[in-house]
Parts: sequence; structure tokens; C-alpha cells
Amino acid sequence: MAEKITPRSVDYSQWYIDIVLNAKLADYSPVKGCMVIRPRGYAIWERLQAELDRRFKATGHQNAYFPMLIPMSFLKKEAEHVEGFSPELAVVTHGGGEKLEEPLVIRPTSETIIWSKYRDWIQSWRDLPLLYNQWANVVRWEKRTRLFLRTAEFLWQEGHTAHETKEEAVKETETMLEVYRAFAEEYLCLPVVAGRKSDAEKFAGAVATYSIEAMMQDKKALQAGTSHFLGQNFAKAFDVQYQTRDGGLDYVWATSWGVSTRLLGAIIMTHSDDKGLVLPPSLASEEVVVVPIFKTDNKAAVLEYAGKVVDALKADGRRVVFDTDDSSSPGWKFAEWEMRGVPIRIEAGPKDAANGTVVMVRRDTGEKTFVKVDEAPAKARETLAAMQKDLLEKARAFQDANTKDVADRDELVSFFGKEKGKLDADGELHEGTAEAPGGFARGLWCGGRDCEAKLKADMKVTIRNLPFGRQDGCDGACCLCGAPAKHRAIFARSY
Amino acid sequence: MAEKITPRSVDYSQWYIDIVLNAKLADYSPVKGCMVIRPRGYAIWERLQAELDRRFKATGHQNAYFPMLIPMSFLKKEAEHVEGFSPELAVVTHGGGEKLEEPLVIRPTSETIIWSKYRDWIQSWRDLPLLYNQWANVVRWEKRTRLFLRTAEFLWQEGHTAHETKEEAVKETETMLEVYRAFAEEYLCLPVVAGRKSDAEKFAGAVATYSIEAMMQDKKALQAGTSHFLGQNFAKAFDVQYQTRDGGLDYVWATSWGVSTRLLGAIIMTHSDDKGLVLPPSLASEEVVVVPIFKTDNKAAVLEYAGKVVDALKADGRRVVFDTDDSSSPGWKFAEWEMRGVPIRIEAGPKDAANGTVVMVRRDTGEKTFVKVDEAPAKARETLAAMQKDLLEKARAFQDANTKDVADRDELVSFFGKEKGKLDADGELHEGTAEAPGGFARGLWCGGRDCEAKLKADMKVTIRNLPFGRQDGCDGACCLCGAPAKHRAIFARSY
Repeated sequence: MAEKITPRSVDYSQWYIDIVLNAKLADYSPVKGCMVIRPRGYAIWERLQAELDRRFKATGHQNAYFPMLIPMSFLKKEAEHVEGFSPELAVVTHGGGEKLEEPLVIRPTSETIIWSKYRDWIQSWRDLPLLYNQWANVVRWEKRTRLFLRTAEFLWQEGHTAHETKEEAVKETETMLEVYRAFAEEYLCLPVVAGRKSDAEKFAGAVATYSIEAMMQDKKALQAGTSHFLGQNFAKAFDVQYQTRDGGLDYVWATSWGVSTRLLGAIIMTHSDDKGLVLPPSLASEEVVVVPIFKTDNKAAVLEYAGKVVDALKADGRRVVFDTDDSSSPGWKFAEWEMRGVPIRIEAGPKDAANGTVVMVRRDTGEKTFVKVDEAPAKARETLAAMQKDLLEKARAFQDANTKDVADRDELVSFFGKEKGKLDADGELHEGTAEAPGGFARGLWCGGRDCEAKLKADMKVTIRNLPFGRQDGCDGACCLCGAPAKHRAIFARSY
Repeated sequence: MAEKITPRSVDYSQWYIDIVLNAKLADYSPVKGCMVIRPRGYAIWERLQAELDRRFKATGHQNAYFPMLIPMSFLKKEAEHVEGFSPELAVVTHGGGEKLEEPLVIRPTSETIIWSKYRDWIQSWRDLPLLYNQWANVVRWEKRTRLFLRTAEFLWQEGHTAHETKEEAVKETETMLEVYRAFAEEYLCLPVVAGRKSDAEKFAGAVATYSIEAMMQDKKALQAGTSHFLGQNFAKAFDVQYQTRDGGLDYVWATSWGVSTRLLGAIIMTHSDDKGLVLPPSLASEEVVVVPIFKTDNKAAVLEYAGKVVDALKADGRRVVFDTDDSSSPGWKFAEWEMRGVPIRIEAGPKDAANGTVVMVRRDTGEKTFVKVDEAPAKARETLAAMQKDLLEKARAFQDANTKDVADRDELVSFFGKEKGKLDADGELHEGTAEAPGGFARGLWCGGRDCEAKLKADMKVTIRNLPFGRQDGCDGACCLCGAPAKHRAIFARSY
């Protein structure tokens, strides 16, 4: 048997860690808070990265690479930026055996180093826009870490664009959030709510931050991507002016946007079950595993039969693994491949060979079908497409079922069930998923920072974002304090 | 006109830097010794990376990602390793606003952190081999840096494999050097000499290092890739033992191997000329530039004609850029695209439209051909294939012409022309290429460390490697000291 995974109903957090470790997606590092991404986890990141990179290039972006080490003084040039990132910095004080004249920080994000170069590269409106992205590692010193979800070092991409006008920069901010939304839903099967962050939750140095928010199976929110309109803040901090079309001088407008290896945590937590990992077929390096079922006397015949199925699937473009190992039983193999999240299992034994069939088992639903051997490739293709669609729909149905409009504080308190649950320091409810209270509460909000801060302090619930397309008709009362409302917000506990 | 590039005959080093900066491949960083890789440079790295990654996977390797921060104590576990890397370390002493209990180093290479994890993952021979690679940034604090060739932070890949037997690990070391050799020659058009490093020049912690060495146009060698047989050194340092097939316990055998962004420097220096960058077609994001030549009265007709050529090339699978900008002259554009290294330029003006022809110009040779418009796609394909082949052959002919067998010290001194040249501190000869003395001297060597050290001190010439396939018949006298020889070596000045 594969190693045991703690059921979600017993301990949701442990279930998650069990999957990450047992499916060999990631492991702990000797340095506290850092993470090793193992080949099976990295293969998912590579597929995700390739598709996202394709979408960036399709929207006119180019990749570049900026240095990881940033002079401490650069961070200080933008007041909010340094305030936001100071507590999380890793600082290099010595290099080549000598104490450095000025300490360097390992990038927690690259606005400052990038804008220091944009100053050299931008003179005129003819040099604009710059639409650059980089794939890189960053370090943010975190006290409480969890594999993929929050680690001191993580991998991400960060886009940094420079524009002539405010309108163009705002449009870019929106475009990239939409790239993330479409990517999350189409490729990762993660339904998300797109919207604007409250000022308290926006990026340090941004004028406005947009986000996409997903819902995990424990009904907590996970911020899956952000896109920031930076106004002229960094251009002013680094004195990046350009000659305008009418011969004047103006500061350049900026955006930045990013997603990280945290998305792997979101994917795992959204789709997986008590048997292990469930992956959208788009992300699976192995779409189909073929398990031949044989004894010593029929081994050769079964392997030949199953091998032909493997060949036919490969010829049809499938990524296939053929598990011919004879040191473990079929039952052990089934459990192992389920734990690893291979979307389709095909079983082929002597009876199947006699009947000209195979058994096809779908990872997400467990649905078992007898398929004529000639039809296996077409059926596999169909099943993978259905699974990609169904995983999104299932997650969307879960999100919808756990999203509630709330009118006042009582409804909100009751929805998040503070009284009911055994909340630990993380605001987690270890009773499990189905029974855990909470989700996305949708309610009116006055826009007050105090009101928002009090909610967080009282219940560990925050405003996730102000969803786009739902900001009309906000003329009621704030569901937190009763004052006149300005926005409609999504409230949730979050990762 | 495009910005001026210093001719090679005037100043070879400046010529190189001019190309890197003017072709916008890289730029200096505010942090001394670091480098910004600009989109045009990064696009070359991406193509190189994709192809090399494909070759790694075809030889059974998987990608993973290990943390960048390594406890200082880990480095000290392997005596030679820490001795070799100590002078180059960047050290993190503070994180999250606090002084760390133990300083962390930014990886200069990842053997130590990886073998600390291999200890957790390897119990039995059944767990072997592990064939892992990672694409990452590393930091080695360097005093004298040069864009791409030697920078404090650089990008690279590092393979780290674990094996049951010595034979298997040695074979892996050889296999990966051969992957590098084939890749360098077939894809980068860099002819190389493969061989074993002398003990003085091997990797800190290796039993043996193999390298591929290329020759630049100034006749200096550039180490383009290395593959290390690490024996059981790291397994012993991190106590990685496995249960053998016969039930015993033994230490695991290791290899590591890597190439870096330094390869971009090698590509630039091998193929480029006084007009700018010359790129192997394999590495060019833009294989063909189409420049329409028009005046106001024929602009529409010429653009239509040239546009059809662009479409036909794209339909044939070419990566094409169509330069329709009308703010600069054709002459300026020609110079600019030559500087950027686009392999083929196609010119189409009103006369061409009338004749049903285009002009095709090949970047490396400058050869100009009139081509019937219908034949342009086939001719472009053919020309690119020829260029890929010819660049390698040209570079190989240059290397052959500047490789000489030397019998004794007088011949060696005369070959490297110490007396003749104006050697600066770097051992560079600023008279330029054609006249500069040196190259690869091939001679017998006694194997003595002192002999090797004296040569380096006297002439800045080092043993590049002991070339494979040329170690028979070494029974003469060492060309340095006259003692009985053991090896045949390649001597050169190097980057």
C-alpha cells in the first residue's frame, strides 16, 4: 500500500502536507522556511510556466533577467515599498570575504532594481512601452511557512511594464489580471473572483492592486495572482522621465504583476481528495498510466496486449506511462498512481485480452468503464477533455455553494461560525471540510480602514477584493458597521 | 547610423563589450559585478535553454529546484569544496530584521544542499540512480567581471546525479560531457576540444573534471562546459549510504555538470564581426528581416509586395520581422539589423516588385543574391541551413589553423609570443586578432603541478585539458621541463 494520507475530515492541514510529501511534490529544506521542489512537483511548475509564458508572449511581452541583489538604499527610495518589505528582507552583508560597503538585499520583488535600469533605457515616448517579464526566485523572510503556500524563497514571474499614459498603464494592469483569470480557469481549473484589493491589502508602493481569489476545499480564500497599477510612484522614486509627444517631460507610468509557485498549493488543495493528488490533465506529465495485470504464466501475453494499448495511446499524442514493474501488486500500483494524480488509469488483464477490451478508470470521479481496445485512444482523449471541464465546474459549484450574500454583522458572524468552530491560531477549523463554516461572504462595505481592521482582529476574516462587475447598486449599509456603503466586497478567511 | 562598434583590430575587448551593449544583449547592474540580461540577450538564452533541456530529458534527466540559501556549515563538510569556494561567497547574515543564528551563503553551486537531501531520499539501490538537474542563479563574488563571461551572479544549469557504482557515475560524467560537446557544435556552432582537466584546474571536491574548450577569435580558450566525477566525496561528507544489491552498505557515487550564461559570451565572441552580432540561425528569435524600400509615392505598393513575402516566409515556418518603420532610412536599418545579428535580410523595393524578385543578404558572409519571389521561402530555408553548417566549419577552420604541436619550451614561448605582444594584466593582446600570437598549443606534459604552475606564472598560459582520444603515444619528453611525459595537453591563454 502507498503511504497513508490523513483524511480531510480529520485534519485538513495535515491532509495537504501528506499529499505534498507522499506524492513527492516538495520537501523541507535544511534552512527553515525554504523548500525543495522535487521532480514531480517541478514538472507541474514547468507545464504551468510554459503555458503562462506563451500567454505573456501572445500579449506582447518579452522576458529579461535582472540581478537578484539590490542595494538596500534602493528600497528606501519608495516610502511605502520599504515599509512593506523591510520586515521580510534577507540581507547580504559580506561578499568575497569582505564586509560590503552597503548591505544588499535579496530581491523580495524587483521594482526598485528594474526602475533603476528603466531610467537608463527610457528617454522618449518612442522608447515606450516596455513590456518585460522575468522568471525568478525571490526571498521574503516568513515566520510561519507551509510548502508551496508560503515559503521564504519561492519561484515566480514578475512583469514590469512602463507606459506613456495613465490610461495605458491601467489598461495593462487589467489585461494582465484577465490573462491570469483566463489561465487559472482554463488551464488550472481554478475558478476565481477577480477584483480590486482594499487599500489596506494592496501592494506596498501601488496605487491599486487587482487580484484573483480562489476558494480552497476548506472554504478559505487563496490569492492566486495580483496585478498592480503603480502610477508614477517608482518613476518618481528613480527619476524616470521621458520626452512626451508634444515635447514636454513627464514621469513614466508603471505596472507590475506576478504569480508564484503558491499556485501549486492552490491546485493541490482545490482538486485533490483523500486518495491523493488530483491534477487537471493539462498539468499532468503523465496523462495515462497503463497497468498490466498478470501472473507468471500469462505475463508475456498480457504485456504484449497492454503494450499495444500503450503504443496506440502514444500514437494518438498521449503522455503515457507503462507500469510493468513486477515487484508490486496491481492493488498497490492503483493506490500509488491515484496518489500521484495520474488522470486516467487503464487496466489490462488476461480477460481483457480475451475480450478485446480494457478497463479505464477516471481519477477524479473513480468512474470505471469497459472500453473496446480500438476505441481506447479516442475514449482517453474524450475523458481527459471532460475531466478538464468537469474539474473547473466542480470547483465552481463548490465556490458558488459556499458564497453567501450577507446583510449585516450578525449574518457575517454566523456565516464564519466563530462560535462554532475550534479555531486555532491560524484560524483553521480542524473539524474538516464539509462541516467547516465560512466561505466567501459578499456584502456591502463603507470603505473604512478601521472597520476592516476590526473584522480581521475579531474573526481573522479579511476583505479579499472588491469584485469587478458587482460594484453597481452599493447604496445600502456597510455590513460591518452600518454606515453608508461604497463598495461590494468579498470577505473570507485566507491563506 | 547604428552606434559605432570598435573594430576587433583596434581593441578586441572593447569590440566585445560594444556588441553586448549596442545589440542590447546585456547591461551593467547598479551592483558591481552583476548583470542585467536584456530581452534580446535573454531570448538567445531561452532558445539555448530549451534545446539543452530537451537533450537532458532525452538522456533520462528530470528537473527539480533546491533552495538558494545554504548553511555555511554545509560547505565545510567537504574540505576541498569549502577551500575552493570560500573566497567567492556572498553571505546572508540577517533575515526578517534579525541576526541569523548561522550565516547562510547564496549557492555558488549546489552539491552540498542537494546531497543533504539525497541523504533523505536514498536508502536502497532501488532508489538509484537519481538523475536531477536544476536551472538556477548562482553567486560567486568575482573581482574582475565582464558581461556574460564572468559575473558575480549568473544563470546556469547544474546536474547532480547519484549512482550505485563507480562505473555508472564515470559513464554519466562522460555522457554529459558528450551531450555538451554535441550541443555546442550542432546548436551553437562552437567547435570544442573535449578532455580531462589537470588536477590543479579541476572542480573543488571532484575526483576528475572533464571540460569542453572553445577558441575565441583572439585565440584565447573559453571553458564552455564542465562535467565532474565526484567519486564518493559528497556522499561521505553528507553520510549518504545505500543498501547494496547483496545486502551490504556503501556510499553513493556522484556526478555534477553545468553550463552557464557564459556560453552567450562564447557565441558572441566566436561568430561576430565588426558590424556586430552574428548568430547561428538556431539561436535567432528573428531568422529573417524583411526591409521594404519605398518612397512616399510607391509606399503602399511596396508594402503590399513585401508583405506577401513576409506571409510566404511565415507560412514556411520562418521567424520573420517586417521592418515597416518609416522614420529611418534603409541604410540605417541595414546597419541596425546587421548589428543585431539577424541571419538573413531581405530587401524589396519597387524594382524588385516590377521584376518579381527580392534581394537576399546573408549576415555572416554578406553574400547578396537576387531571388525570384516565389523561391524566397525555399532559398531562405536553404541559406539558414547552410549558415548553421558554415559557421561551425569556419570556426573549426580557425581553431585548426591556430592549433600547433609544440615539442619544447622554446616552441611554446614562440607560439604564445610573450616577447612580441603588449600583454596587459589580463594577458590580452590589444593589437587585434589576426596578428595576435597564440592559440592552442598541443604538447606532451609530465603531469607535474610545479611545471604547470610555473607556466601560468610566467606566461599566463594554462593547461586547458588533456584531450580525449589523444592520450596514446605520450612517451616523449614534457614540453615544459623535459621530464618523461604522461599526457598530451592543450595549452592556451583563457577567459
